[in-house]
Parts: sequence; structure tokens; C-alpha cells
Amino acid sequence: AWAQAVPGSSVTIYGLMDACVTSADLGTDRINGLNSGCLYGSRLGFRGTEDLGGGLRASFTLESGLTIDNGMLGQGGRMFGRKSLVSLSGGWGAVELGRDYAPAFYVVQPIDPMALGIGTASSTIWTGAASTTAARNDNAMNLLSPTWGGLTIRLQVAAGERGNNGSRNAQGVNMLYRSGKTIAGLSHTRVANATNSDHDRATTVGASHDFGAFSLAAIVQSGAWEGSRTAAAPSSATSIFSRSYRSYLIGGSVRAGDVGKVNASLKRYDDRTARDFDATQFSVNYVYSLSRRTDLYAGYSRLRNERASSYSVSDATTAYSGVTPGASTSLIATGIKHVF
Amino acid sequence: AWAQAVPGSSVTIYGLMDACVTSADLGTDRINGLNSGCLYGSRLGFRGTEDLGGGLRASFTLESGLTIDNGMLGQGGRMFGRKSLVSLSGGWGAVELGRDYAPAFYVVQPIDPMALGIGTASSTIWTGAASTTAARNDNAMNLLSPTWGGLTIRLQVAAGERGNNGSRNAQGVNMLYRSGKTIAGLSHTRVANATNSDHDRATTVGASHDFGAFSLAAIVQSGAWEGSRTAAAPSSATSIFSRSYRSYLIGGSVRAGDVGKVNASLKRYDDRTARDFDATQFSVNYVYSLSRRTDLYAGYSRLRNERASSYSVSDATTAYSGVTPGASTSLIATGIKHVF
Amino acid sequence: AWAQAVPGSSVTIYGLMDACVTSADLGTDRINGLNSGCLYGSRLGFRGTEDLGGGLRASFTLESGLTIDNGMLGQGGRMFGRKSLVSLSGGWGAVELGRDYAPAFYVVQPIDPMALGIGTASSTIWTGAASTTAARNDNAMNLLSPTWGGLTIRLQVAAGERGNNGSRNAQGVNMLYRSGKTIAGLSHTRVANATNSDHDRATTVGASHDFGAFSLAAIVQSGAWEGSRTAAAPSSATSIFSRSYRSYLIGGSVRAGDVGKVNASLKRYDDRTARDFDATQFSVNYVYSLSRRTDLYAGYSRLRNERASSYSVSDATTAYSGVTPGASTSLIATGIKHVF
Repeated sequence: AWAQAVPGSSVTIYGLMDACVTSADLGTDRINGLNSGCLYGSRLGFRGTEDLGGGLRASFTLESGLTIDNGMLGQGGRMFGRKSLVSLSGGWGAVELGRDYAPAFYVVQPIDPMALGIGTASSTIWTGAASTTAARNDNAMNLLSPTWGGLTIRLQVAAGERGNNGSRNAQGVNMLYRSGKTIAGLSHTRVANATNSDHDRATTVGASHDFGAFSLAAIVQSGAWEGSRTAAAPSSATSIFSRSYRSYLIGGSVRAGDVGKVNASLKRYDDRTARDFDATQFSVNYVYSLSRRTDLYAGYSRLRNERASSYSVSDATTAYSGVTPGASTSLIATGIKHVF
Repeated sequence: AWAQAVPGSSVTIYGLMDACVTSADLGTDRINGLNSGCLYGSRLGFRGTEDLGGGLRASFTLESGLTIDNGMLGQGGRMFGRKSLVSLSGGWGAVELGRDYAPAFYVVQPIDPMALGIGTASSTIWTGAASTTAARNDNAMNLLSPTWGGLTIRLQVAAGERGNNGSRNAQGVNMLYRSGKTIAGLSHTRVANATNSDHDRATTVGASHDFGAFSLAAIVQSGAWEGSRTAAAPSSATSIFSRSYRSYLIGGSVRAGDVGKVNASLKRYDDRTARDFDATQFSVNYVYSLSRRTDLYAGYSRLRNERASSYSVSDATTAYSGVTPGASTSLIATGIKHVF
Repeated sequence: AWAQAVPGSSVTIYGLMDACVTSADLGTDRINGLNSGCLYGSRLGFRGTEDLGGGLRASFTLESGLTIDNGMLGQGGRMFGRKSLVSLSGGWGAVELGRDYAPAFYVVQPIDPMALGIGTASSTIWTGAASTTAARNDNAMNLLSPTWGGLTIRLQVAAGERGNNGSRNAQGVNMLYRSGKTIAGLSHTRVANATNSDHDRATTVGASHDFGAFSLAAIVQSGAWEGSRTAAAPSSATSIFSRSYRSYLIGGSVRAGDVGKVNASLKRYDDRTARDFDATQFSVNYVYSLSRRTDLYAGYSRLRNERASSYSVSDATTAYSGVTPGASTSLIATGIKHVF
């Protein structure tokens, strides 16, 4: 089919450019480089909204993830890999169709003191994507409630691809409360395995409060990747989620001068299978704001592999993999983030 | 080479987001899913025009096709797969260079009651692309006449790629008349085979008229894919065009309330080779306009494979293939289309 | 990580569309076609700048290369393959991070009379990219001095990719003087080989002066691809740079009427290894400006392979390769270039 653009519409272009110099200690190796998106993933987006009258609105978002260091697309080369949604919203809530994060993400993202950057919460706390290697779900339908006194409910159903007969069908739900300086959220995720006979699942609870001079945050997740792991290999030495695990985060932020902020988190991953591939990770960063749109930053994260696993440290874009089994690994990074 | 943008130019961003829930009966299988572009293909485009004085204008269009459900590019991953043109136009007509539809498309598109959406005319009426699997021609030069009392002539010559020595060179021409409520068009297409020794060709005639409360439309095509089919296999069980065929469409539209419309078409494909892989297809949809830019829609199409063929139902983006040989197949879809 | 666009930012969309009809004589074969970017590479870009106060500015550029003839991305399918940079600049100069040309490019580009189009200087004068098949460096940090009386210094350090352990690390520097009608530049480039045991290098000197009715230009490069060539194969029959070479360009431009210009260059490539794969190339074009933004052009370039080499003629986008060994090769092209 074929159509002409209709007069009266307007499109907002927005984005974020984040480039950084990194040095990762992988145990035996050290890797130095120039990377994209240590603090926030680099992106270019297009969005617009139409007022349909009676409180009803039609909206769209098309958001590309990119890596500045080589000019390539992120998300495995997807053009609009970060977000691709069309939606209808009104006083009753919203319906969104396309590709988006799972509900668990929308609980973890506003609470993680590291803002899902250097030492991101998401490397040890599952944000609910159906794919074991991606952060978002294709073929998703989001149902959003209205906001009742700060509380919103989000439901997502993401169909597997054609011919998969239910394989990796995902369902997720969250309740998120935001009021003044407090954020509190709860989510549950469930993803079917390839034969739809078993499923991965996780329940996540988190909260943060801004006390003025400082803020505190905590997240707890109880999960089981029963659809993705076998009885023989209930854990993976490189991919952190096991057939039964608990994952914890505590952290917070402190203002440092007029335009600076120090953020830190301590994470504990408890593999509850016989393999016991536990890990502990500490992360800290300093963000200095040149303006509301432009920040300089430096960060450090260290992860201890407590047995033969080789879990890695991640920032907002890159997993610094190839860690020597059983070794500790760390990342130090400094960069610039510019929002437009 | 390298250049700076010149002040004074302006670029229009435009596009269309169409997402839909679909259920396709393939005979033995039924496939349910969330898809992109059932009614119109989702897209994001950039275009601009410069007035050169004396009625002369330079223009460009770069239009990406995309699939909302997974954030990927359409047209086999081409960045500007829908359209990529630079042109000069004036009182004498226009010259356009780049990638575009063939002239036959510009006859079928404004006449098909289904708007090339659910039950698109293009699945049984060839719109003239050189590739047997694509809808547009690369390396194209379009020559457009001025409009004389509603009549325009379009000529396209599309060179094959380097090293192909004339392989799949395409030529097409149309005459299109648009005046008030009447559209009438005629086109002829010719595409060379790999050795330039034979060619596919088709002649297409179509017309529609809007009578006010309703409109009527008809298209007839006589074609022969002699360059793409062999004497041993003059037809294909999955791809509809044979070494000799006739294809027919009748249909129309009826207003349904202030902002609704019902569109329907009946198509008949007559394979005139010994294999006789004929097909009959009926399609109907209902489009409800929330605004000039945003529609809700639902549609249904059913195709009967009359012998051992497994032709499929298509919408504006997807061919629901994998049909059981000889079985009837149908598609039911509902969605939202938002233009910006 | 995840962020909201900040109000107050603005993004400029810019680009260039260049389409052309070409005929290349490859010795035994002649190839005719419709191509993209004979004079300047076609592109679509996004850029913006934020004033941070005190003379400090944050800027970004995301520039896609594309081929109009097929709607595809250039630069091997990279999304922002032409340029992807975030930068901070002030009275002290600038720091830029991302993907960009090497410093040698910024000397050759403003001096080449052919504007790196049909018969581009860059086919016989190395513009400094680390990859032997690309024009730009990934993982680059550019350091730019302020401009002192027309003189600017540019330094680039481009890290190899992870795991390459210094492989193809590139460093380049230039000094570029621009004042009134004179441009003069000097650059040095150095790129490590795969084991960081040897390196490619080149020193480039060039100048041009506009005398009013005409301008003259000259470039000399002394180079050695010791990191990319072996002792056994110190030259390549198809790729022009050898383990030791000198490359020369002289040329200039003449105004032809109010809105026309004729540009020409004569290039000599002197392979100083025992293979002695020398070449001589003459190029001329005529550019007729319909406006400041839109040009029509025609050009011709002929390259003589003096021994068994099969070097090819290039325009701004395409190398017309497949030349019969030892044969002369030529390109004739005509097209339109539209800047927006």
C-alpha cells in the first residue's frame, strides 16, 4: 500500500550520544578501547503525537540504537532496535503495539542507582526480555492503566514469531508507584520455552527514595530460568541466570557539589542450583553535568566470580566478556553523554 | 567527496505506522501473530524540494520501509527500500533517478479497492518489478510527461546491475487519467531474463469511478512470465505468475456512516499454461477513521487454490505462505494505521 | 540505560543526493549503468550543537552514506558510515570521539580539483584510513587545535578493535593552512599491522591557490605500506599502494561562464618496489550550477596501467574494478547533485 503524509503532523527528532574510553580487566587479559554508550546507550529517535479529541491520542516512537565508535546499529543491526511502537492512549490508559522493553525493565530502570550504565543492574537482575541475549521483546502488546494517585499498572503480551507455536511467548506485568521522591515497583515475568512445555519466570520488587542530600535504592528478584536451562546444566558459566536464583541490589546516590553526583551499587547474585555460581559486584560512578543536556562521567565496576563462572561486567551497551573462569573482572570507563 | 549543507533548505519528515493482529489459516496450520503493515506498509521518509526558478524544481525522496513488530527494515533490509529518488521537474515533465515502483504499480495502486492492503491486488496482478520477489526496481530512470487534461504518461527504464549484461533490464510505460471522480490507466511492462534472450511482459488496464455513495473498480491484466519460467515448469506452485496468464479484479467501496468505509474485491487468476494453476480470491475490509491521520481497520481475505498450487494471501507487508497444496487459505486481521 | 530528550535542543537534517549515468571501459569489458554519487557521495545526516557557556560547545554528527540507485547504505552497510561523532569544543580547540576520516583526508579533500569525485585523488593518494578498503577510521579520537592565523593542527588516534591487541591502530596528524585564496597542508599517517610489528605510513604535502579566473593545485605523497604488503608481494595488481611509493597530483580549475566550472587533474603513481606497478591518470569534469544547491555535471577519467597491474578508475562512490591486466581504463559519467 501507499500513502501520502497528511499536513499538520509534526515529528520530534531526539537522541543521545555517549562515547567513552574503557579499560576492562578480564583476569588474564586487559582490553582497552574507545566505545559507545558506557553510561547510556547512544540513540537517534523519531516520535510524534496526534490529538484525536476527547482525550484520545495516537502516538508513535521509532528509536534506533547505535554505536558511535563505528557508526553501526545496535541491537544486532536492527534499524529501530531500541523502540518501535504505535499507540492509542486516553483517560482509560494506553494500548501500544510493536517492540519494547518488558514490564520488569520499567521497574528496574528508574531504581538502579547506576542508571543501567557502568555496572548496570540488568546484568544480574533479569529485565524480562524473551530472548536470553536481548533486552526487548518483539511482537509486543502493552496495556497501560491510567495513573491512580501515582500508581500505574503495565501488562505486556509478546507473541513468539510465526511457526514457533508459542515458543518464547512472553507475558509480564508490573505495578509502579511514583510519588514525589519515592519510587516503588513490583513485576512478574513469564516466558515459555521452545516447546511451550516449561517457562522462565521472575518476580522483582524494588524501591528508591530521595532524602535530599542522598538517595537510597534496593531491588530483590527471585527467578528461575527453567525454560532456558536443562537439568544437566541448571546454570551457565557465562550467562548469569540459572534454574533457580535470587538477586539483590542495594545502592544510592549522593550529591557532590552543585553539578556533580556520585552513584553506587552493591549487587549479590545467588545461584541456588547445585552449581552455586554466585557473584558479587560493586559499582560506583561520578557524573559531572556541564548542562542539563551534557554530562562528563567516570565509573568503575568490579565483579567477583565466586566459583568457575566467568560472568562479565557490563555497561549500558557492552558486556566485557571473555573473563578467565573464576577470576574477578573489572571495568573502568570515562566519557561524555550528550542528549539532544 | 565531501560537502557542507547549504542554508535555506528544508526537509520534511513523514511516515506511517501500521500495526495489526493477524490470524492466517494456511490449510493444515493456523498462524496467529502481531504484525506490521496489514493495511499500509509502515515507513519513515525524508523529502524536500528546491525551487530553481523558471518553473524548474529539484526534489528528493528517501523512504524507509520498516516492520513495527520487530523494529527491522523491510525490503530485505534496504535502508531506503521503499523509495530513493532525486529528480528535476518543470513544465515539460520530470526526470527521476533511483529506486522506485514500476509504471504498472502506478496504475494498480489508485484503483485497487483494498489499497494494496489485506487481499492486495498485487498478489495476483503483477505491478512490474524486475525482481520476481520485490515490488520496486533499482537503477531506474523515470520520465514523466506533464499532465494534459488529467492525462500523464510515465516511462521507466531500469538497468540491470553491473556484470549482468542486460539481465533483468526492465522497461515500463503507463498512461494514467485522473479527473474528478474517475481514474483510468493502461500500462505495459517488459523485463529481460538472465541472458537477455527472452522476457517477462504484461499489459494492464484498469479504471475506477466514485459515484458518491459507492465506487466501482476493475483491473484486467494479460501477462506472460516467459523470461522467468521454463518450458518444463511454465507455472510455479507458490509464485503466481505463469508463462501465460490473465488476471482480473472487480470491486468497490461503500461509505458506512460518517467516518467509515467498506471496501471489497473479487479477483480471478487464470493460469493459461497446461498446469492450469488458477485461483480465486475475495477480500473485504472496514476502515474507521478516528481522524484524517489515524484509522482503525479490520479485514478478511480468502483465496482458493484450484489445483495443486499453494498460492498465499498477502497484506501490504506480509505474504502468509506455507499453504497446504490445493487448500484454500484465509487471513483475518485488525489493526491501527497512523500517518505522520 | 534510558533517557528522555531534553527540551530546547534542535537537530539539523542535511544531506546530498547525487545520481549519475556511467559508462566504464575496463579493457575487455564495458559496463554501463545508473549509479549513485559520481561527484559526491549521497548522504543523509543529523547534527546539532549545544552552547554550554564560556565558549564551550557540545556537538554531534550522525551521517549515513547511501546509494540512491538501490536505496542501500554505503560503507559496507554501516548505518552512520560516513561520520559518527560527539565532541566538545572551545577556545582551546576540540575533542571529537567516534568514526571519522583520518587527518590526511582533510589535507587532500580541499585541494583535489576533482573534489574526490570522478577521477578522485584518493584512488592514488592514501587518505589515511586504517582499513585497506575503507576511507574512515573507527574508534577515533580527534584532537583539534584552535585556528592560529589560518593554521589548524589535527591529531587522530584510532584504536584497533577489542582482541586485536594493537592491530591496525592508527595515528595521524595534519597541519592545514587556509587563508583567503590559499590552502596548504601537510600530514603524516601511521597504521600498525596485525601483529603491531610493522606499519603503513605516508607523508602528504599539498597546496592550492585561487588566482581568480583559474586555480592551481598540487599534492605529493611519499608512502610505504610495509604493514600491509609482504616482501614477496610488495605491490598489489589491484590495490594501488605498495611497500614504497610516491604519488603526485597537479591540476586546477577554470571558470566557464557565469555558473560553470571546468576542473582537471593529472596524477602519477610511482611504485618504487621491484614490481614497478606505475600508473598515470587524467581526469576532467564540467560542473554547471542550476543553483547554489543543485549542479549538473559530466566527467571523464582515464587511467593507464603501465605494467601488469589492473588499477581502476574511481568516482566518489564506486571503484570500477575488473580491469584487464595492463590495460588502460576509463570512465565517463554524467549526473545531478542536489544538496539539502
